[in-house]
Amino acid sequence: MHAIDRDPLLLTPGPLTTSLRTKQAMLHDWGSWDAAFNHITAEVCRQLVDIVHGAETHVCVPLQGSGTFSVEAALGTLVPRGAKVLVPNNGAYCARILKILKILGREAVELPTAENCPFDPLAIESALMADPDISHVALVHCETGTGILNPLPEIAAAVARQQRGLIIDAMSSFAAIEIDVRTMPFDALIAASGKCLEGVPGIGFVIAARDKLAASAGNSHSLAMDLHDQWIYMQKTTQWRFTPPTHVVVALHEALAQYQEEGGQAVRGARYRANCAALTQGMARLGLLPYVAAQFQAPIIVTFHAPQHAAYDFQTFYQGVRERGFILYPGKLTRIETFRVGCIGALTPQDLVHVVDAIAATLAAMGVMGARGATDAMAVV
Amino acid sequence: MHAIDRDPLLLTPGPLTTSLRTKQAMLHDWGSWDAAFNHITAEVCRQLVDIVHGAETHVCVPLQGSGTFSVEAALGTLVPRGAKVLVPNNGAYCARILKILKILGREAVELPTAENCPFDPLAIESALMADPDISHVALVHCETGTGILNPLPEIAAAVARQQRGLIIDAMSSFAAIEIDVRTMPFDALIAASGKCLEGVPGIGFVIAARDKLAASAGNSHSLAMDLHDQWIYMQKTTQWRFTPPTHVVVALHEALAQYQEEGGQAVRGARYRANCAALTQGMARLGLLPYVAAQFQAPIIVTFHAPQHAAYDFQTFYQGVRERGFILYPGKLTRIETFRVGCIGALTPQDLVHVVDAIAATLAAMGVMGARGATDAMAVV
Repeated sequence: MHAIDRDPLLLTPGPLTTSLRTKQAMLHDWGSWDAAFNHITAEVCRQLVDIVHGAETHVCVPLQGSGTFSVEAALGTLVPRGAKVLVPNNGAYCARILKILKILGREAVELPTAENCPFDPLAIESALMADPDISHVALVHCETGTGILNPLPEIAAAVARQQRGLIIDAMSSFAAIEIDVRTMPFDALIAASGKCLEGVPGIGFVIAARDKLAASAGNSHSLAMDLHDQWIYMQKTTQWRFTPPTHVVVALHEALAQYQEEGGQAVRGARYRANCAALTQGMARLGLLPYVAAQFQAPIIVTFHAPQHAAYDFQTFYQGVRERGFILYPGKLTRIETFRVGCIGALTPQDLVHVVDAIAATLAAMGVMGARGATDAMAVV
Repeated sequence: MHAIDRDPLLLTPGPLTTSLRTKQAMLHDWGSWDAAFNHITAEVCRQLVDIVHGAETHVCVPLQGSGTFSVEAALGTLVPRGAKVLVPNNGAYCARILKILKILGREAVELPTAENCPFDPLAIESALMADPDISHVALVHCETGTGILNPLPEIAAAVARQQRGLIIDAMSSFAAIEIDVRTMPFDALIAASGKCLEGVPGIGFVIAARDKLAASAGNSHSLAMDLHDQWIYMQKTTQWRFTPPTHVVVALHEALAQYQEEGGQAVRGARYRANCAALTQGMARLGLLPYVAAQFQAPIIVTFHAPQHAAYDFQTFYQGVRERGFILYPGKLTRIETFRVGCIGALTPQDLVHVVDAIAATLAAMGVMGARGATDAMAVV
């Protein structure tokens, strides 16, 4: 095996591999009070709202921290105390929303769904019809825990018909999968810098309906995560309320420029689909099959069944692939042994072909698979 | 005036000017699940605890977001519901603690002090003796709003004598001003990456007494800001609970290496004192005097009275100094017109001399001051 003389590529759902240009934007220091920096913040917010065609109705409120901070902030700010939230649940990030609502003292109604099945819009609509006290639906768009894509357009239509509010965790879908607020109405959508926008991690953001956000004063359980307060302050001063991660913000600004140059959502989504196809086709040749059926698979991250072989263990596998230049991601299912491979970041289909080669070589070295490809031992049970 | 062909220097309390070496550490992407990254996190935490000599008794819990996120997290996690907190108040960051406690539903007792006076340890001890229900004191060490240094050693001794818990907001003093938990006992101390450690902004951290943190399960009002949960998860997995700002973390690691190479707290503190002396001496020659008396002034950030002249306005002044290569900071006092100049960051006394030159040239160009220096109009009233 040749030594790898570049940084390993990240086949992960974020932080991910970013372009050198994006990282080089961090080679400058910016004053957080200075107009030049605040102009960048405003530009970033405007572009983020435009990605979902929301300029007429929605505003973007950025927030320091990981995406989960923004999810908690959105729930705490936009769901009043005493309200009730329907949470369709087919994975780890849906479960996290339930956990947040419990800590925040907001009543939640769980609608459990098998982890390998997308939500049924009719079931969601029925649940809303059955309980008029439910004021909001909290929806995970692409469930990163498995890689499944939930049918946002149909769910948004159902929630709108029932005149409830929709809060979308679009962490791993935003900017790659089409979301259009004009046809898929929502109260709020949450995403983050370090996912399909290909920025570095460090901020999240909430794209919120202006009228709903304006009516949310005093709801929040937190000062730092009060999106209404953050929004009002930013409107008044153009500044962040508390010190922003300036370098992360300018990196996101540079990443957005590259996003536009690439061709925006349609072209980025197409590249990720090509990455995902190169990955799943290559893995199929090794006998490694996805957990989620192809028609439900988002082109973001793919969960694979682990090889059913006595010589397989994830740590050795991970380390072997890492030594060959690629960082994989562990599975997040509790009952089935899996691992995950991301398709997002500054990667091309050719990179994914190389990942498959590294996986094959590692499994061969582990004795899990013959050097020439899949064996009977690789059959998925 | 010559055009400036370098980035402006930041004379601000953070984000501040960092070394190129620190910024260059951000030119790589790291997997947040990967052992190489988690080793860096562990190294950073160990070094931060060592700065206050806390290895025997204390642990470091890093948290995504600005320093205020960590202040809120520390109060929410370490102050149980139903507890009562004494908050000596001589500035904007003390007031912010009061605001956080109110939102969190923790009872607060304010001990107001004039903004240009440090806290009186005897008054704090008297307040504790008078109210045995007070369980904690929340203390701002260096109040960044004015630049005043509060007497931590004496206050820590008083709080310890009264057997209450001390929570220190050391945001702008940590790593530059001596804090030794062996002689200045505290339950928790809060600081952040982008201050005297000279990292980039994006994470805060709480150095907490292990026994107090271990007893804090279930206190937090928030999932994202639950330091107990963050600590338990990190111990179990070596990872952050939610996506860390990986580039910010590696920049802090690189900044800490430079901190050690420089000579640690004593040498960094001495450089900042030299910066502060160069600044205040130069400004005095212009007739510009600090708001805080010299014996109470921390060598971190200096509040200056604005010139008493009809031709002065802060925006023009700020812009003029910026065009000369330096970014100042606005004042934070409501009743007196001031501006602030930071002494921290990758700056030397020579840089501060140049700042004074830029201030003099700007005031001269504004007609506030003669080209040769202070005039009668500069006398502070």
